[in-house]
Amino acid sequence: MKKVIKNGIIVTATDTFEADVYIENETVVQIGENLNYQGAEIIDAKGCYLFPGGIDPHTHLDMPFGGTVTKDDFETGTRAAAFGGTTTIIDFCLTSKGKSLKSAVETWHEKSAGKAVIDYGFHLQIVEGSEQVLDELPKMVEEEGITSLKVFMAYKNQFQADDETLYKTLIAGKELGALVMVHAENGDVIDYLVKKAIKEGNTDPIYHALTRPPEAEAEATGRAATLTGLSESQLYVVHVSCAEAAKKIAEARNNGIDIWGETCPQYLVLDQSYLEKPDFEGAKYVWSPPLREKWNQEYLWNALKSGQLQTLGSDQCSFDFVGQKDLGKDDFSKIPNGGPIIEDRVSVLFSEGVKKGRISLNQFVDLTSTKAAKLFGLYPKKGTIAVGADADIVIFDPNVERVISAATHHLAVDYNAFEGMKVTGEPVSVLSRGNFVIKDKEFTGKAGDGQFIKRAKYGTTLKKDKTMI
Amino acid sequence: MKKVIKNGIIVTATDTFEADVYIENETVVQIGENLNYQGAEIIDAKGCYLFPGGIDPHTHLDMPFGGTVTKDDFETGTRAAAFGGTTTIIDFCLTSKGKSLKSAVETWHEKSAGKAVIDYGFHLQIVEGSEQVLDELPKMVEEEGITSLKVFMAYKNQFQADDETLYKTLIAGKELGALVMVHAENGDVIDYLVKKAIKEGNTDPIYHALTRPPEAEAEATGRAATLTGLSESQLYVVHVSCAEAAKKIAEARNNGIDIWGETCPQYLVLDQSYLEKPDFEGAKYVWSPPLREKWNQEYLWNALKSGQLQTLGSDQCSFDFVGQKDLGKDDFSKIPNGGPIIEDRVSVLFSEGVKKGRISLNQFVDLTSTKAAKLFGLYPKKGTIAVGADADIVIFDPNVERVISAATHHLAVDYNAFEGMKVTGEPVSVLSRGNFVIKDKEFTGKAGDGQFIKRAKYGTTLKKDKTMI
Amino acid sequence: MKKVIKNGIIVTATDTFEADVYIENETVVQIGENLNYQGAEIIDAKGCYLFPGGIDPHTHLDMPFGGTVTKDDFETGTRAAAFGGTTTIIDFCLTSKGKSLKSAVETWHEKSAGKAVIDYGFHLQIVEGSEQVLDELPKMVEEEGITSLKVFMAYKNQFQADDETLYKTLIAGKELGALVMVHAENGDVIDYLVKKAIKEGNTDPIYHALTRPPEAEAEATGRAATLTGLSESQLYVVHVSCAEAAKKIAEARNNGIDIWGETCPQYLVLDQSYLEKPDFEGAKYVWSPPLREKWNQEYLWNALKSGQLQTLGSDQCSFDFVGQKDLGKDDFSKIPNGGPIIEDRVSVLFSEGVKKGRISLNQFVDLTSTKAAKLFGLYPKKGTIAVGADADIVIFDPNVERVISAATHHLAVDYNAFEGMKVTGEPVSVLSRGNFVIKDKEFTGKAGDGQFIKRAKYGTTLKKDKTMI
Amino acid sequence: MKKVIKNGIIVTATDTFEADVYIENETVVQIGENLNYQGAEIIDAKGCYLFPGGIDPHTHLDMPFGGTVTKDDFETGTRAAAFGGTTTIIDFCLTSKGKSLKSAVETWHEKSAGKAVIDYGFHLQIVEGSEQVLDELPKMVEEEGITSLKVFMAYKNQFQADDETLYKTLIAGKELGALVMVHAENGDVIDYLVKKAIKEGNTDPIYHALTRPPEAEAEATGRAATLTGLSESQLYVVHVSCAEAAKKIAEARNNGIDIWGETCPQYLVLDQSYLEKPDFEGAKYVWSPPLREKWNQEYLWNALKSGQLQTLGSDQCSFDFVGQKDLGKDDFSKIPNGGPIIEDRVSVLFSEGVKKGRISLNQFVDLTSTKAAKLFGLYPKKGTIAVGADADIVIFDPNVERVISAATHHLAVDYNAFEGMKVTGEPVSVLSRGNFVIKDKEFTGKAGDGQFIKRAKYGTTLKKDKTMI
Ligand SMILES: [Zn+2]
Ligand SMILES: [Zn+2]
Ligand SMILES: [Zn+2]
Ligand SMILES: [Zn+2]
Ligand SMILES: [Zn+2]
Ligand SMILES: [Zn+2]
Ligand SMILES: [Zn+2]
Ligand SMILES: [Zn+2]
Repeated sequence: MKKVIKNGIIVTATDTFEADVYIENETVVQIGENLNYQGAEIIDAKGCYLFPGGIDPHTHLDMPFGGTVTKDDFETGTRAAAFGGTTTIIDFCLTSKGKSLKSAVETWHEKSAGKAVIDYGFHLQIVEGSEQVLDELPKMVEEEGITSLKVFMAYKNQFQADDETLYKTLIAGKELGALVMVHAENGDVIDYLVKKAIKEGNTDPIYHALTRPPEAEAEATGRAATLTGLSESQLYVVHVSCAEAAKKIAEARNNGIDIWGETCPQYLVLDQSYLEKPDFEGAKYVWSPPLREKWNQEYLWNALKSGQLQTLGSDQCSFDFVGQKDLGKDDFSKIPNGGPIIEDRVSVLFSEGVKKGRISLNQFVDLTSTKAAKLFGLYPKKGTIAVGADADIVIFDPNVERVISAATHHLAVDYNAFEGMKVTGEPVSVLSRGNFVIKDKEFTGKAGDGQFIKRAKYGTTLKKDKTMI
Repeated sequence: MKKVIKNGIIVTATDTFEADVYIENETVVQIGENLNYQGAEIIDAKGCYLFPGGIDPHTHLDMPFGGTVTKDDFETGTRAAAFGGTTTIIDFCLTSKGKSLKSAVETWHEKSAGKAVIDYGFHLQIVEGSEQVLDELPKMVEEEGITSLKVFMAYKNQFQADDETLYKTLIAGKELGALVMVHAENGDVIDYLVKKAIKEGNTDPIYHALTRPPEAEAEATGRAATLTGLSESQLYVVHVSCAEAAKKIAEARNNGIDIWGETCPQYLVLDQSYLEKPDFEGAKYVWSPPLREKWNQEYLWNALKSGQLQTLGSDQCSFDFVGQKDLGKDDFSKIPNGGPIIEDRVSVLFSEGVKKGRISLNQFVDLTSTKAAKLFGLYPKKGTIAVGADADIVIFDPNVERVISAATHHLAVDYNAFEGMKVTGEPVSVLSRGNFVIKDKEFTGKAGDGQFIKRAKYGTTLKKDKTMI
Repeated sequence: MKKVIKNGIIVTATDTFEADVYIENETVVQIGENLNYQGAEIIDAKGCYLFPGGIDPHTHLDMPFGGTVTKDDFETGTRAAAFGGTTTIIDFCLTSKGKSLKSAVETWHEKSAGKAVIDYGFHLQIVEGSEQVLDELPKMVEEEGITSLKVFMAYKNQFQADDETLYKTLIAGKELGALVMVHAENGDVIDYLVKKAIKEGNTDPIYHALTRPPEAEAEATGRAATLTGLSESQLYVVHVSCAEAAKKIAEARNNGIDIWGETCPQYLVLDQSYLEKPDFEGAKYVWSPPLREKWNQEYLWNALKSGQLQTLGSDQCSFDFVGQKDLGKDDFSKIPNGGPIIEDRVSVLFSEGVKKGRISLNQFVDLTSTKAAKLFGLYPKKGTIAVGADADIVIFDPNVERVISAATHHLAVDYNAFEGMKVTGEPVSVLSRGNFVIKDKEFTGKAGDGQFIKRAKYGTTLKKDKTMI
Repeated sequence: MKKVIKNGIIVTATDTFEADVYIENETVVQIGENLNYQGAEIIDAKGCYLFPGGIDPHTHLDMPFGGTVTKDDFETGTRAAAFGGTTTIIDFCLTSKGKSLKSAVETWHEKSAGKAVIDYGFHLQIVEGSEQVLDELPKMVEEEGITSLKVFMAYKNQFQADDETLYKTLIAGKELGALVMVHAENGDVIDYLVKKAIKEGNTDPIYHALTRPPEAEAEATGRAATLTGLSESQLYVVHVSCAEAAKKIAEARNNGIDIWGETCPQYLVLDQSYLEKPDFEGAKYVWSPPLREKWNQEYLWNALKSGQLQTLGSDQCSFDFVGQKDLGKDDFSKIPNGGPIIEDRVSVLFSEGVKKGRISLNQFVDLTSTKAAKLFGLYPKKGTIAVGADADIVIFDPNVERVISAATHHLAVDYNAFEGMKVTGEPVSVLSRGNFVIKDKEFTGKAGDGQFIKRAKYGTTLKKDKTMI
């Protein structure tokens, strides 16, 4: 199978140039002027950019939460991702106290195998630093290729781990070569504030935001950074929502701590006032951390530009407005947290970031793909358009204008968080390992075509044959 | 003229991959596996990296200073640069109060034309914000392609400009699309301290360092950053030498100011104690800002790693130890400032940075080449290995070990600042626009082969034919 | 002459207690319960506080500025001060380049002698660090008792001194024991912005504020702090107007620099929007630095509370709205800077600070009197109510409510900056060295009763007989 | 009973002046020149300062710890305190999970009643935020006069409370008017590091310091500050040992958080190297937080001077070197924490602080007495020399030189942490409520003379009759 993409403008995290791309089977083999190979399918990308396929390092598909399950699973979720220009996701594999990590991973393989239309990997939650968990961990990293570990500092009495667990996980991460990730909010404070609000009859969605103040996020972020420095380990802070938390990351980086920060499209373009929408519609905008006061957006954009924050995740976690979100009709704390972002992650950043001059085209590629590939052991097979890389390529028309809407999106969920938002730019076709998964805006992939990727350890790269070492 | 470089590992600011590079005349035309073109010269780069040619954004060749002139001129200087893996330099064109900018630029063209063996551009000093200067400036930027302007905040009664001049230059830079550069030290304070030291009989070289405290650099850096923010312009701080100044840059970047920082190899591996060498040898290590206390080195390395500082200049400015530096035998303030770094800039960063695990290979390329290309309007012709770029390529053996010495270096000056230092890695061959300027460690270039480059405006890129717009 | 003040509550910077105060001639001799001295005048202070007389460390009386002269002179100014509870002022003695310091001091003595109704001292402006000035300085400090020196970093081509002058003044201050004071704004930037605004036809009073951005104040404040640290001298920053500048002072103090900050009532209760008042009324609110955005007020209040800022000056500098301020009718830069604050300084801080719970009663005394006494060499004769101190005492009714108005104030100027503001608390009677200057809200003093005070050197105290050493 | 102290120099947190003090029974009644009262005992304080009696806000007397009990109890401890110029202590009343607060307080009354020779109060430990505890708390504050609550963030599985408990305590403190105090170290991290060290055979005393890094203290300090800001409550951080933690307090204060910091003499003059003393002698210097690297001392001194830290506690907690400290002979984690400081607290600060020019005399009084009185509801009866205050007065000879030694100290414990240290200045006589407890360096007090003080709520003052409201 041979393909030549002609007339496009290739964009990597560093370079922007016109050239043809020659693909053999799953792999980019040549990049140059006027490439012509007999028998190759010719794809005309005139007027389009060629981006490396997006990598979404933060998704929750088919995930149970608060007595329900996310509406989108590995099939609908990855299909929507592909429409949006994402060709790899890394999903969070949840674990429970007392149960083996192995069984959790198996559960996640069951959820995804035969369903995913694009490639995927797993992060592994660490809920307790017990001897059993620590004993099982090397196998997960080295044999299962799960080279990132997630710790929650919030969701008291549910996911929340204490500092001992976080510290032990950091030590393990350092020793095993796994990147530790945190949901950074002070769960104890939040738990108090939530209970108090409910008790006082403050049950509307806006209280979700008011009971999770930015200080609680900044504090936990700073604490996790301190523990990272003390353990000489490495840390990735998911879904940074506000200036105060971003500052803690910048400060730690300046002090030589190996720490990275992710934000999400929702924090860049939506704000706390959305939670005040009438008729319970605010529930659509319930994330943790919550949407913040609008002024934070400029700070976050600048943090992306100046390199304080390094990646963009979707935190995809979709629940129907009708039938799921309304579990919290009378009590905001029962609203399932999260929203549908996986499909629009790339487009929103392109339209609001590149088109509005807030970040460069190369930064856009780094943020949506390359940096995640490097941090999570997918590089150089993923995250770039270069000789030897997987042919995960997005042919992106930068000028088309469209309006985001649940009426036209490809997720299963019944609303879209960006409903009515005008964006410029859209993927036309998307290749996953050399095959069209989207062609001329039509889905041409197949459930099960996505492969699970055993990722390389932190600080190392995948081999040509995608083995870890 | 066709060449294929085979078996090398291409390294850009983002990517690292094995591929062949096909060059036609001056330009990279194709990158891929197993490239074979009839009639092409085959160059075997087995075991070597292919780096984009180094860009040294900070040189002083054939420059008058303190009654003498730098030992190295555009011929010896650029030849040494080429040996060291640098294929483009940007030199500082000095101006004087009351004289036209045009005449200064002409002088600099006379110094360089027919001499340079690699490509080069000029930065233009702004010594006063007079109407005459401001009137002449648009022509310099738009017609002469000199898209960066240098202001000195130190060297009182000589180069030093006041804040009015700096502010007007920033405004002009913003309007014209020129990047403003500063030598950031508080010249008033330094002038006082120098006179006081001399008066008190403290004339040894070490007093050069002691009369230029880090606070004076940090203060000026912060002041320049503030003026940049107020003018919404852009700033590049040359030769950042210490933690305090680097922090000011980080802080400004975090606040959304468009500011960039350069450091130099000497600040990364040498320290203030060198100025105390006996027999006046300390004079070899007289830079402004001065070498700092050793602990600053770790901070600077980390600033490179975390992205607080973005480029590496040499501040090449060589004076013979015998016959020039000794002008200051009895008065440190008469020691000509500067040293010979242009040749070893790339090697020192590779050996001390990449080999010792302080920065990644891609960061090394960004620091020595790519970022300077982008900031100074040389990209995409310079600063990367990509289809359409100038074939400025360094074939670099990462494993050879050698000792830096004046006995073997290629500069005209009589000493080397890194004398005796062991480094790992060395350029084997160097191509400038497709031609070998160094081949198997021999000089194969020619004086005059280097071209003056009219650079693109700040924030824009060079066209294919190297026109600015 | 003997007096006993009975039934009042004595308040010092530390203590609050009920006791009688016994005064012999000019001096407090005893404090205790039930003091009864034959022949003593009994003053009933029931329901009142007894505060040490206010010290206003920042006044401009009878000062020429922009072709006019302040409306209030040492007679009207000090009388109004006394009504407001201030019993000592320190006025700025202006100097000019090339003229002797001595002659400037003589001029100021002429302005004040025979006019002042309360005690006073002088700060001495240093406009250039010339040899002549530096030679004359010791005499000014040691013989004239002028132990504080003022440097302007703004007012380009008028008062503005360069960094060399500031640095030399700091060195002199350190050697002579004089506290250096700065007006901290970057005059070069402001000069540019003012000229640009005028040129663009932006001539209304609001442009006074818009052309003096907070960054310009913060930058200069930070710069002055750096120079203070480098010289190991001491600094007092006058009229801190905004959060950014206050932060610079806090940061420097945390780093061990001997720096102090003063704010003024206008920055605590008025804001930038006042400059937008119609019919040119904004001109009444033209100070340099300008009134700031309202949110700064909370920061400044907190800075007073937490000890980041230590004193409250009035920056009294009054010009009639009709006939003086209107010099700038068509050009904001010609509006004479300053306003009438000397009379209400104490009351506004009491009402807005103590009564509204922002600062404690003892902090109020420290801010309006004690700290200035200590910093400026007036303590222990001034700044406290203690045995041996001058009987400068304010009998203050904390509960009376009144409205500030030009109709009732005691200044000569034709408007009041706090017109219409309701305050709680007012001086009932005021003693200056044991004599009533205000009695039951009537003026009972006499022009010329105020004495010039030769102040003690920085870090030392006045002797019993008010000699310096 | 009448006394007149003549010829001394009275020093308060603000004032320094010569005057006589007239005392009737327990109370200061008059201050003035030449006081003469028939029948009064005349005390000549010529050449001496009169300080308000020291207040030590941080003692552990008769406290069980790690299977043993502090050597000094309320009798030996308070007697030694009196010798050192301290006339009031506040001791920590420990509680246990599941037990009533009332019973803990009763236990502490039993320990102290009939033993204390000076006045005293209690802080109350909150070990859990259970409903029972929160229900009982109002009574403790309002009826028992225990208006400060202590939470430990370290000592895992022993004293350590989680963030929920700390937050609930802060809320309670705000509602009840109690000042919350924290021991701020991250106990989880420390617990991990301690276990690891022991496991690796690192059992010497120095590992006590190495397993409690400054970052762990700074992190917990910052976290507690954040929780204080969120709850709009008030916080007092005990025993701040290092620059990093002091910075967190300064930062929080700058942001308007109502937070206070205490340091201890040991952190000002001893350092981490003491833990490396041979023959297990390092065990004498085991405090938590540990002694720090020497450079921190200068930062802490400056923090006292600039007002970042506000009080000086002793953290008195004495264990014999022989028989108690040696419980940790083979395992540093078993060394009882703490040392004997109560007696020398005042003298060390005077000698190292005032005499060496690091702080002023008035700051010394504020740090050793006044600020604690105000923060902990003892003012105005304690903490000052003023009319109406308790006659708790130290007659202090500022010039006598002596050497601190266990051979001469008045504690029961068998070593002194400052053994061999030369200090200048010593209390000659000490009055507690008008009675000599030390007279001419001899103990003249009596066990049981000390009274328990029901303290005023945070932000309020004690009434004349020492009732709270
Ligand atoms: Zn999360
Ligand atoms: Zn998530
Ligand atoms: Zn320079
Ligand atoms: Zn230079
Ligand atoms: Zn001023
Ligand atoms: Zn003024
Ligand atoms: Zn403790
Ligand atoms: Zn303690």
